[in-house]
Amino acid sequence: MIKWKKKYKHFNGETRFGSHYSKSTLTEMNFSCYMPNNEKVVNCLIYLSGLTCTEENVITKAGIQRFLSGTNTMLICPDTSPRNLNILGVNDDYDFGEGASFYVNATENEYAKNYKMEDYIVKDLIELCKKEFNIIKFSLFGHSMGGHGALTLGLKNKCIFTSLSAFSPIVNPILSPWGQKALRGYLGEDKERWLTSDATELIKNNYRSNHSILIDQGLGDEFLDEQLLTNNFIEACKEKGQRCNTRFHKNFDHSYYFISTFIKDHIDFHISCME
Amino acid sequence: MIKWKKKYKHFNGETRFGSHYSKSTLTEMNFSCYMPNNEKVVNCLIYLSGLTCTEENVITKAGIQRFLSGTNTMLICPDTSPRNLNILGVNDDYDFGEGASFYVNATENEYAKNYKMEDYIVKDLIELCKKEFNIIKFSLFGHSMGGHGALTLGLKNKCIFTSLSAFSPIVNPILSPWGQKALRGYLGEDKERWLTSDATELIKNNYRSNHSILIDQGLGDEFLDEQLLTNNFIEACKEKGQRCNTRFHKNFDHSYYFISTFIKDHIDFHISCME
Repeated sequence: MIKWKKKYKHFNGETRFGSHYSKSTLTEMNFSCYMPNNEKVVNCLIYLSGLTCTEENVITKAGIQRFLSGTNTMLICPDTSPRNLNILGVNDDYDFGEGASFYVNATENEYAKNYKMEDYIVKDLIELCKKEFNIIKFSLFGHSMGGHGALTLGLKNKCIFTSLSAFSPIVNPILSPWGQKALRGYLGEDKERWLTSDATELIKNNYRSNHSILIDQGLGDEFLDEQLLTNNFIEACKEKGQRCNTRFHKNFDHSYYFISTFIKDHIDFHISCME
Repeated sequence: MIKWKKKYKHFNGETRFGSHYSKSTLTEMNFSCYMPNNEKVVNCLIYLSGLTCTEENVITKAGIQRFLSGTNTMLICPDTSPRNLNILGVNDDYDFGEGASFYVNATENEYAKNYKMEDYIVKDLIELCKKEFNIIKFSLFGHSMGGHGALTLGLKNKCIFTSLSAFSPIVNPILSPWGQKALRGYLGEDKERWLTSDATELIKNNYRSNHSILIDQGLGDEFLDEQLLTNNFIEACKEKGQRCNTRFHKNFDHSYYFISTFIKDHIDFHISCME
């Protein structure tokens, strides 16, 4: 059951904001979406946002709606974590807690109860789209932490997600400071348990996407060398025979200016895969 | 002299944020801009934003850059008022003071010294673009309060501005609550002095634009009937023979979702007028 907060006429469709109760997080979860004005909407693109974002960033800044208007493909953009929980320190850091779920099923401490974001995306959000919007096919993409989410959840659920793409994804979090902090905090000290939340490790362990994976990465991205580690993923894909179209772009950074520049290619890619 | 704060590679060009000193406002003024990657940039579109906005809203939300990339036309988006002045109550109201200059030359009280926004746009910003970017032709557009600014400054300076357009403009501020509050506060009680800051009155007094004026207006806009008064402008244009292409759009509201839906038409219009 969706609680709609706001609907805006946008191109030949509507940009909407709403929330619904999640059985996985046991909280009301916020999302934004774009509904094309088309009676035969059967495909859905799920976009996972990066650190500090809410459901609002991508829907206002990326310029996606222009390219979905009139198609049979809707867009849904979940929030990056549960909100307003009474967890000590949940808002202290920009890269852990609220706005920074890393899309895993937390098992540790106070996060274990509600931070079941992997289940939320793969079960509750999918169920919502099937029930409320009669969606048949799904594809998954995201940015930075959300690129990590798209790749890991997508690789582990290739029967659900037709195609995967990412902007500036964190592809090897077990080796990056952001990733290590999050995985330790949500999953505990045992690094064996981190491996199924690491896209590069999943490829090494023979997880696959049906289609070639599309990745866009700016070469002026300040996080590339320390946090994103793009080349580790490319190497693993090569070694294991996963097709991956990684495009490096001179001078582009980690921002939504970068995303909006290449967003049309991602929409075209997913729509053609879901056709 | 421009102080650049940030530059982002964006499409085949750069979205930039900067500031410069204004001789009219006697303050540093913020702006954003988009520079296409084209050695022959000679045209400039100036966009004036609405109440509560800064130079950031339009440049992140409207999706303009896609349509200027590669052209000979840059975009510059000034802030909506001087900032950080020690004026009593300047931040008390969303519709007066900071973020709400109405693009007039204030004569009253503490606003008289710095709130010379009409001069800032028509003199300082134009001079900046000529000197720093070698611009030859200018066109002007805006949203809401900025639509009011675009129409009034454009009509009064048709030797400077080639073409004019607006989204959801306040076209008859002497009759709207927002306008009356602002004009009284900045220009004083004498309503005769308000007339040259009212687009409908300017048309009645034979001010003109060289080209047809393009206006887009949502019919679901909550401010249409009380604040915007679009039909008064249309009537005046008809009576006085000013060409005006006003397009009303069912269900669209006052937001950037509306603006981004029709932005391409405005860019195409101005570029063809400046050709």
